[in-house]
Amino acid sequence: MVPVGIIGDGYTAADLLRILGNHEHVRAVKIFSTENIGKDITEVYPSLERLASLTCERTDLEALKRECQAVFLALPHGLSVPYVKELTEAGVRCIDLGADFRLKDALVYEKYYELAHEAPEMLETAVYGLPELYRSQVAGAQVVANPGCFPTGAILALVPLLKAGLIETTGIVIDSKSGVSGAGRGLRLTSHFCEVNEGVHPYGVGTHRHAPEIAQELGAAAGGPVQITFIPHLIPMSRGILTTAYARLIPGVGAAEVSQAFEDLYAGEFFIRLLPAGVYPHTRWVYGSNFVDIGTFVDEEQGRVIVMSALDNLTKGASGQAVQNLNIMFGWEETEALRMGPVFP
Amino acid sequence: MVPVGIIGDGYTAADLLRILGNHEHVRAVKIFSTENIGKDITEVYPSLERLASLTCERTDLEALKRECQAVFLALPHGLSVPYVKELTEAGVRCIDLGADFRLKDALVYEKYYELAHEAPEMLETAVYGLPELYRSQVAGAQVVANPGCFPTGAILALVPLLKAGLIETTGIVIDSKSGVSGAGRGLRLTSHFCEVNEGVHPYGVGTHRHAPEIAQELGAAAGGPVQITFIPHLIPMSRGILTTAYARLIPGVGAAEVSQAFEDLYAGEFFIRLLPAGVYPHTRWVYGSNFVDIGTFVDEEQGRVIVMSALDNLTKGASGQAVQNLNIMFGWEETEALRMGPVFP
Amino acid sequence: MVPVGIIGDGYTAADLLRILGNHEHVRAVKIFSTENIGKDITEVYPSLERLASLTCERTDLEALKRECQAVFLALPHGLSVPYVKELTEAGVRCIDLGADFRLKDALVYEKYYELAHEAPEMLETAVYGLPELYRSQVAGAQVVANPGCFPTGAILALVPLLKAGLIETTGIVIDSKSGVSGAGRGLRLTSHFCEVNEGVHPYGVGTHRHAPEIAQELGAAAGGPVQITFIPHLIPMSRGILTTAYARLIPGVGAAEVSQAFEDLYAGEFFIRLLPAGVYPHTRWVYGSNFVDIGTFVDEEQGRVIVMSALDNLTKGASGQAVQNLNIMFGWEETEALRMGPVFP
Amino acid sequence: MVPVGIIGDGYTAADLLRILGNHEHVRAVKIFSTENIGKDITEVYPSLERLASLTCERTDLEALKRECQAVFLALPHGLSVPYVKELTEAGVRCIDLGADFRLKDALVYEKYYELAHEAPEMLETAVYGLPELYRSQVAGAQVVANPGCFPTGAILALVPLLKAGLIETTGIVIDSKSGVSGAGRGLRLTSHFCEVNEGVHPYGVGTHRHAPEIAQELGAAAGGPVQITFIPHLIPMSRGILTTAYARLIPGVGAAEVSQAFEDLYAGEFFIRLLPAGVYPHTRWVYGSNFVDIGTFVDEEQGRVIVMSALDNLTKGASGQAVQNLNIMFGWEETEALRMGPVFP
Repeated sequence: MVPVGIIGDGYTAADLLRILGNHEHVRAVKIFSTENIGKDITEVYPSLERLASLTCERTDLEALKRECQAVFLALPHGLSVPYVKELTEAGVRCIDLGADFRLKDALVYEKYYELAHEAPEMLETAVYGLPELYRSQVAGAQVVANPGCFPTGAILALVPLLKAGLIETTGIVIDSKSGVSGAGRGLRLTSHFCEVNEGVHPYGVGTHRHAPEIAQELGAAAGGPVQITFIPHLIPMSRGILTTAYARLIPGVGAAEVSQAFEDLYAGEFFIRLLPAGVYPHTRWVYGSNFVDIGTFVDEEQGRVIVMSALDNLTKGASGQAVQNLNIMFGWEETEALRMGPVFP
Repeated sequence: MVPVGIIGDGYTAADLLRILGNHEHVRAVKIFSTENIGKDITEVYPSLERLASLTCERTDLEALKRECQAVFLALPHGLSVPYVKELTEAGVRCIDLGADFRLKDALVYEKYYELAHEAPEMLETAVYGLPELYRSQVAGAQVVANPGCFPTGAILALVPLLKAGLIETTGIVIDSKSGVSGAGRGLRLTSHFCEVNEGVHPYGVGTHRHAPEIAQELGAAAGGPVQITFIPHLIPMSRGILTTAYARLIPGVGAAEVSQAFEDLYAGEFFIRLLPAGVYPHTRWVYGSNFVDIGTFVDEEQGRVIVMSALDNLTKGASGQAVQNLNIMFGWEETEALRMGPVFP
Repeated sequence: MVPVGIIGDGYTAADLLRILGNHEHVRAVKIFSTENIGKDITEVYPSLERLASLTCERTDLEALKRECQAVFLALPHGLSVPYVKELTEAGVRCIDLGADFRLKDALVYEKYYELAHEAPEMLETAVYGLPELYRSQVAGAQVVANPGCFPTGAILALVPLLKAGLIETTGIVIDSKSGVSGAGRGLRLTSHFCEVNEGVHPYGVGTHRHAPEIAQELGAAAGGPVQITFIPHLIPMSRGILTTAYARLIPGVGAAEVSQAFEDLYAGEFFIRLLPAGVYPHTRWVYGSNFVDIGTFVDEEQGRVIVMSALDNLTKGASGQAVQNLNIMFGWEETEALRMGPVFP
Repeated sequence: MVPVGIIGDGYTAADLLRILGNHEHVRAVKIFSTENIGKDITEVYPSLERLASLTCERTDLEALKRECQAVFLALPHGLSVPYVKELTEAGVRCIDLGADFRLKDALVYEKYYELAHEAPEMLETAVYGLPELYRSQVAGAQVVANPGCFPTGAILALVPLLKAGLIETTGIVIDSKSGVSGAGRGLRLTSHFCEVNEGVHPYGVGTHRHAPEIAQELGAAAGGPVQITFIPHLIPMSRGILTTAYARLIPGVGAAEVSQAFEDLYAGEFFIRLLPAGVYPHTRWVYGSNFVDIGTFVDEEQGRVIVMSALDNLTKGASGQAVQNLNIMFGWEETEALRMGPVFP
């Protein structure tokens, strides 16, 4: 069993442990916390009884270097950089579930995160951990920047069309709807039950930090800058992201080309399920699983395409994808520990 | 007290009775049903005890003509036409909460509702009952076509910009999020608790009947055809619609002009609450009330505007607006019985 | 218009303002806060736009004494005592929505609230503000102790049986289910959306502070001590309390006597709706209103009775009941501003 | 791979397929339906894509006898009897998720299900499939009667105390709170989203069919009749049952004996997680898993014990337990395919 460590004890850490509890090749041997030091992880998350047997400790990089072959970092932005630097220098492979290594441009990072990046030289070698797009690079990576939850849904929805050159690169609208777990376990009024329940509202309008991440990856697929409008909304549910992406088709493009583009890129991908024509995704169909469901609608009259994707923000949008990356990095079956079925209803 | 009747006993009828139970000038004297004939309305809706005292009866137009000065029709499409025709001929004023008199073009009606309109000559004189846009016409109307719930939110969000000529009339994206009560009380799998709860999904993709209604009214405001893409989504909540509308600004237009357009049209409107800059609507803030909250965001760099509106689909989106129309038709204070505060949290 | 003040700006304060916004005889002129000083109340609660026009201020008793005839206190326990003392000495009538004046026995208060009561002499004259039981005392009270949300539901459910001597006074089980707003707006993990949503759990097992309050009032009705087991549960909803109370019938008592006891006590009570035989309460039927619905089931074979009651914890369980008390204290119609219909669905 | 069949295509069938999709020794080869004949199961449940590859067919016992070694029946009561009879005669082992073989007394069955049992002679040999109580009998059974969801929670909560003789056998109160999936996928108003959401209410008061099942098994543990009051409540969530059971302690019994009784019976049970003192179960901690969490509270002053249990009604309360039984029947590891972690949050 390969020993791994986890830095952080928020919801993504909990989902990591849920998944790793059934992993054939991995054992989580360390979990680091700031607020729960000394507590058994099952005191922090009683759901994990029988799945994890760990005590939350104060962060100790030496212990990680000594005992672990890989480390998952699930930390607020800015905190991962020094840890990742030190760990990789010691030969420990890192999967960062935070935002510190996702953006290739340190200036964009600085603009959106209001923080100078402390190791800009690492941005180039860090691999953006979306296996369906960067599988081979992930395999050899020392640092994997695990994608954000919204970006995972938006990028997988639009890249096939941009790669195939089927849509205009301006005026793309990405309207996303997320469950509340995306905001984490930290207390704030916007995650307080009564403020969220039985209602829906936009947030992060014009300022959400996932916008540049999406733009970066869509630009890479398009081979040039892509102009997007991204508005996330909070939905009264715990898990799930539905992304509705609207784009203008290049004149002459129709439904057949759109379908083909998705088939071309995703045929053979276990975790991407292309829905039949006329069926559109529902976040419940992927709940608790590592699947992404994608459906498309082409309005040929208006020359527009709408792509809809659904995923579980904590699994394919965070911890499941992180384990998928780990599996690739260590040469195991990519679906190891990730074949659990969606919990429906 | 002016006696009124209600045809239908679904959720909009229930919300009508909730509101009319506190109306100073109106008494509901008749309610007609098909499935609950003979039952007291409080058996059908125990919430109405102390607010309504009525027995559900088989539809009887003669009784309405004899006893009522106004009638609310809350029926599936197609059923209202003959009733409205007969009632108005007898001098009874009608407010149709269904879709039969909203579209001005009988061919569009036929296309979307798959039904020939039985009284196309009435479409011209029926007034589209959005008081903020058609107040004076409502006052004198014999037939008010109460707007659909999605159209109310979308039209109020976009008309100021179109009237002021601030946005392009093509490429408008309207992404709406609705509570489940919009689908009514009729049993179907898509309103079954476990299929809806803890998830979000699009529906009516490319086929929703509110699209032509929205297009008609936006076109009227723009003075010419408007091209929209409208995708509704189902949210795990009972009440509320949030509409996120995306449009391209005419070059040179900025945030100031956008704000001014809303001020110009809605200053003095009791039921429209324009939110301060940086505040965006939340359906919880209007829950159970007749308010519509509107917030705007201008991305001057990309030349785009996003308008967000929130309303309660059963109140301002149906029954509250119907009572607002009634108040105008009978010359009462427009807010009569409609000043109840939103239930928050 | 009688000027009143509010100390506190939590959810019960918000519900007070929702209700008072439509009161014919009252105007809220002051609201005191600790965290939102200087903010307009509509910034704190955008739902209140058009209903309240107030700026949150630092608590100022002199202003209250000068400008207000009555004050609502919506504070954590312990904080009300000095305020109420000073205000009543100045002739300002107080309605305390907190727990400081509910218990008649200062030692019980001290035991459960871990705090010595600073004005035990006031406990005797303070009136327990459950109008259906203490209407005439409320009318003349200087200090009304507005009942807790759980106690309102439990006491109204059991008092008729105890007064009529129909049930044993030992072994009473009170199993309550509450929405999350009962825990207030203060941030804590137990009100964090993802910890509450899609789940149910007991809390306050064996320690809940409403237990002695219930026992006190049941004892008063029974004319001697009553032994109860009270377990509250948290339900993934914002508003509502359902109480299921189980008791043993005195031998020989049957369904007829049980029904009669409820009729005897509650006939003529506007806010109490006794459900027909075979119908049991649903919190949705009282949502946002001041009603309490009660249903009973008698198992004559086992000699047991189950009484179920439903109310809205923020309205009849707090702010609505407070306004009901105010109406009685000032001799207005008891239902003034409280006739709003339950929001269903 | 052992081939198995499923009769029925409701929620429990869907959960069976979710679980069996990861079973090392079993392959589902048949699924029978009435309403979805001819559809691929992923059309009926898109969540199952990649987990099941089956077409819904008309029920065909011959095919089952020919191709399957075991059959799961997930049918409304009354329908399983003839099928089970025929299948077992052909040597096919049956696990009935319905109610037809749970009650040992055909007269009790007839009273509660209003139907004469067509094979009363089979009631004796059918094994009540609660592995923690009847493991060895399950191993050899031809017919396993999979327990009801409420009974699983109630029986596991109370049997340790009854077996150890620690509580009185009269006056036991069982107050249960269930998610809506327990009512199945069939359309009815009581499972309609807007009737359930944001509310809580009791149902089946005095008539619920799980009451005699609970009484039977508690009686078996107590060695004599046990008198219970059982009231289920509907909670606005999809999955989960919380049971709060109240009983009187035999004089002299305290917390230590209570704890010991649970330890004695459940130590070594993988699926039963006894919570530490002061921690009480939350249905979220078992969501989607086969675990049952149990916590106890002893009020020594009043001589009462409260036992609280939480489970997922579709998994440990139905399909997970069915697979657990299958594993025992075929001699596989009891946890095979059932080690998935609870989905939290």
